[in-house]
Amino acid sequence: MRYELYYWPEIQGRGEFIRLALEEAGADYVDVARRAERNGMGMTAMMRLMESQAVSCPPFAPPFLKAGEQIIAQTANILLFLGSRHGLAPDDEAGRLWVHQLQLTIADMLLEVHDTHHPIAASLYYDEQKPEALRRAEEFTASRLPKFLGYFETVLARNPSGESWLAGDTLTYVDLSMFQMIAGLRFAFPRNMKRLESDYPLLIALHDRVAARTRIKAYLKSKRRIPFNNEGIFRHYKELDL
Amino acid sequence: MRYELYYWPEIQGRGEFIRLALEEAGADYVDVARRAERNGMGMTAMMRLMESQAVSCPPFAPPFLKAGEQIIAQTANILLFLGSRHGLAPDDEAGRLWVHQLQLTIADMLLEVHDTHHPIAASLYYDEQKPEALRRAEEFTASRLPKFLGYFETVLARNPSGESWLAGDTLTYVDLSMFQMIAGLRFAFPRNMKRLESDYPLLIALHDRVAARTRIKAYLKSKRRIPFNNEGIFRHYKELDL
Repeated sequence: MRYELYYWPEIQGRGEFIRLALEEAGADYVDVARRAERNGMGMTAMMRLMESQAVSCPPFAPPFLKAGEQIIAQTANILLFLGSRHGLAPDDEAGRLWVHQLQLTIADMLLEVHDTHHPIAASLYYDEQKPEALRRAEEFTASRLPKFLGYFETVLARNPSGESWLAGDTLTYVDLSMFQMIAGLRFAFPRNMKRLESDYPLLIALHDRVAARTRIKAYLKSKRRIPFNNEGIFRHYKELDL
Repeated sequence: MRYELYYWPEIQGRGEFIRLALEEAGADYVDVARRAERNGMGMTAMMRLMESQAVSCPPFAPPFLKAGEQIIAQTANILLFLGSRHGLAPDDEAGRLWVHQLQLTIADMLLEVHDTHHPIAASLYYDEQKPEALRRAEEFTASRLPKFLGYFETVLARNPSGESWLAGDTLTYVDLSMFQMIAGLRFAFPRNMKRLESDYPLLIALHDRVAARTRIKAYLKSKRRIPFNNEGIFRHYKELDL
């Protein structure tokens, strides 16, 4: 079965966490909104599905994944689904809940990253909320960012199976997501990351370990990987990287 | 087995979504931080557990639930755990993912409610971010609130099993959470809810249906239900209820 991933075609955004899992799994998938309209795909196909009154389980927003007739939304929920199907999550229930818990904490962190440039409303431009963004980014870089990084460093340090992965002794989807967080933070806040990184050696090693995976390495070099840009969640505004 | 719930003792907050599930299930639980210090509980017990270096799966923040030796955090994750154990979630995987997806969308909505009074930082007082709060609340009440309510109204209307519950033909944990959202929105934004409610008759009926459940009714009248107050997530500031 070929999965259909639906997400905004110009950005990594939340869709990237799904792409990384699909790529690491070597799963057969099509990134629908990035494909040509003439083939019945593209944004038109995504909007058609989102607005269809025939969908009994509608998503609130992208990303969503179509697996046969099933439509699954919410990034962490999609990863919960993919994780157990593709060996990207522990086999036991307690392990699966732990990985999911970490993923939800990453989701919280990601939203705080987003809100550094959009503290008032996602519907307004960054330029319409710059003074507020400056205050929020100040708080984020000074206090929240080290708090989150410190937490995940602790999780690695305390993993009873060793410091290589966040949960258990093998890669899970949350390791892929943490790689993406580190990569995104480096793009958005290069000065702060330069200042902070040496405090979190296990996280940086995890980032490197994921980047070196055969399939991830190939993916990152491919055209399927959209470059970071200032339309996504991770944005580089010099004035916010205090 | 007696569950131990850990959450800030003075507010409903995120803990309330767990309390409602435990109450509806008739589960045996103790609300640790609300119990007396002299019995080894209270805030001291909660902080001790949060700071213990012996915990290999530490929570980032409350609420968290102790079930035997297992510690589970993140509200939606705790509900995922409780749902399958207490008949508060569908039996099939697709149904469980759908309920969880709705719960995660409620979590997103709840955070937007929180950010109406704390758009800059949770660590600052409301008084320190009032102009920003006013702008954010304006956006929320004008645009985001009706968008979220409209979404959930549609979910009820499209439920193939009928309009009584959000998923399937029986109550699940997400119905309890939606009750809490409506109750909280009425406390925080009474003017806006008065203006909006007639557009969402299915949601209001769902709220009333949950409130009338035998165990929920008893719980709401009990001292275990902390009243809404301006220390929680749902806060009533007249100036934000535009």
